Amino acid sequence: MNMVKKERFFLPSFEMECGQAIPVEIGFETYGKLNQNKDNVILICHFFSSTSHAAGRYTPEDPEPGWWDSLIGPGKAIDTDRFFVISSDTLCNIQLKNPMVYTTGPATINPKTGKPYGMTFPNFSYGDMAGIQKKLVESMGIDKLYAVIGPSAGGMQALNWAILYPDFIERCISVICGARIPVFTSLAYLKAGIDAIQLDPNWNGGDYYGKEEPVQGLSVALQLMNLAAYQYGWYEETFPRKHKEQGDPSYQIKFEEAVSQRMLPYDANHYIYTARAAMVHNIGHNFDSLEEALLQIRARLLMISCSSDLLFPPEYSKEAVEIMQKRGGPADYFEFDSPYGHMGGVLDTQCFAKQISTFLKD
Amino acid sequence: MNMVKKERFFLPSFEMECGQAIPVEIGFETYGKLNQNKDNVILICHFFSSTSHAAGRYTPEDPEPGWWDSLIGPGKAIDTDRFFVISSDTLCNIQLKNPMVYTTGPATINPKTGKPYGMTFPNFSYGDMAGIQKKLVESMGIDKLYAVIGPSAGGMQALNWAILYPDFIERCISVICGARIPVFTSLAYLKAGIDAIQLDPNWNGGDYYGKEEPVQGLSVALQLMNLAAYQYGWYEETFPRKHKEQGDPSYQIKFEEAVSQRMLPYDANHYIYTARAAMVHNIGHNFDSLEEALLQIRARLLMISCSSDLLFPPEYSKEAVEIMQKRGGPADYFEFDSPYGHMGGVLDTQCFAKQISTFLKD
Repeated sequence: MNMVKKERFFLPSFEMECGQAIPVEIGFETYGKLNQNKDNVILICHFFSSTSHAAGRYTPEDPEPGWWDSLIGPGKAIDTDRFFVISSDTLCNIQLKNPMVYTTGPATINPKTGKPYGMTFPNFSYGDMAGIQKKLVESMGIDKLYAVIGPSAGGMQALNWAILYPDFIERCISVICGARIPVFTSLAYLKAGIDAIQLDPNWNGGDYYGKEEPVQGLSVALQLMNLAAYQYGWYEETFPRKHKEQGDPSYQIKFEEAVSQRMLPYDANHYIYTARAAMVHNIGHNFDSLEEALLQIRARLLMISCSSDLLFPPEYSKEAVEIMQKRGGPADYFEFDSPYGHMGGVLDTQCFAKQISTFLKD
Repeated sequence: MNMVKKERFFLPSFEMECGQAIPVEIGFETYGKLNQNKDNVILICHFFSSTSHAAGRYTPEDPEPGWWDSLIGPGKAIDTDRFFVISSDTLCNIQLKNPMVYTTGPATINPKTGKPYGMTFPNFSYGDMAGIQKKLVESMGIDKLYAVIGPSAGGMQALNWAILYPDFIERCISVICGARIPVFTSLAYLKAGIDAIQLDPNWNGGDYYGKEEPVQGLSVALQLMNLAAYQYGWYEETFPRKHKEQGDPSYQIKFEEAVSQRMLPYDANHYIYTARAAMVHNIGHNFDSLEEALLQIRARLLMISCSSDLLFPPEYSKEAVEIMQKRGGPADYFEFDSPYGHMGGVLDTQCFAKQISTFLKD
């Protein structure tokens, strides 16, 4: 694959689901070439803690490629010899301090006040993200997407596309993500993370830019974010405990250090807003029932689950596919096994690459 | 069953594993009658958030009996027509403000200073709890226990008994509890709960008695304590979400209210100390290996797991039983299914009552 570069998309004003309109800028990347008919376009949506860097490298020296590089590239399941792939950053991206992320959120200067929005930033939904991405692809003269694909919160975006813009997308693949967020194994972790940030005296009602930041509260939130992301066995193997080393109750798991090192690019307010967007994920929320919401979908739907996923138990994806199938809609379900639990959807792509590749061929 | 009453046991000085000696008082209850040979004694150990009120009612008007009343009573699996059952409170019991709990912990007045211990209270282990319980039963002239039984943190106490006092106990039943705490699905939740309390400005280094208490941090900790306690399906059914009600991202799950109402009797410092004791649960920690620790056990061992337990995945109990069996030791393993996950060990006792009853007959 050729080297990839980050681009920016600016909208002078975007009206969000909550009714507020604000200027929006997000980053994006593209892989492959747009064909003449502009009908070979696939949109990739990233997960909670990630960015638009889904594939390739910025420089030959980059130690790691993008997060779904195993799926996206020439000859891969999402074949860039055939498809033009667009991947966008989310609003309120939590990797605010990552220089390769462009996002709009609480840390952004509110043009009306000249100060960061802080907690006055409007609450966004993953429906809003679909709306912004639609403006992005339309700005390239594209009026139809071959597919929208994403894992976890990326799946939330893809499913919102399918509900909100049924005639704009032909295929929708939701990986490790169901039609609504489970109450407890996902929603409550995120809620507890928000609470932890807001307990940190440095959070200061969200007004901490240029001052000491609520790193302790954020550290707890990030640990919680990871709590259900993997399977228990993964943690035992990754952070083994030695005997005779654990008598001291101040014993700290190494995981904590790993998180502290990784948290550098994160912003606490952006975490709060992203967590809220995930917490309200329920594609039925504007309808009388989940069934009615799913009836809006015209795209062919593929839902892929990991059997050991604690965060998005397979039941919820299976349920949505069964509702779709009952009314004769084109919907497929595939379940794979992975020691990584939820993160199998990012780390164990070989378990479902073939299903994606086949689904995209039809 | 007759009405039960709370009693108190006082030790002028108890030397803890950490080397410090302090005066200790704990509450306890008994059910059934001690026989002449004093060889019909079963000790019940309670779980993390619970108390010594394992069975019966204090008054005929009590709306709820003790937490394992379905197992303990005349003709029940732990038959009080045959056995004399003792159930003790733990040190640092988190239900500090429950008038029926007697415990010693950070809220207790340090006789040396005339002030609450706060964070100067020595760290206790579940090995210490076994030591204190041994003094309690010895004070009744008992020199052998027919069985020690407990779920979750109660299982931690029972397993410590088996390792530390191998000739004092004849049987050990550990329900929903393995030989060591899983790194992530248990340890990290507790750690995040401690962090949340310590982030609350009202925590004040543990010195908050007589002042405003860190209720917000404690509320987060209690939610975290419950996160892995049940299975995800239980939360969906218990806190159903209505469609068209969830568009507002400030949406709060009802669970939170339920916790707030329930948290009245809890103390934040006591939570911290109890969480630490659970976090270091590893019966191998004073040995070169888990195998070597298990070799100390002379009691017949029964480990009971719930297949959907996220907090104590069955693997860890199975592993210990297999090690015991390999060296020819008398050890049994039983696994049951329950929609309650970990809490199946407390709420779904009919799933394993027969196994306990049979094990106690042999």
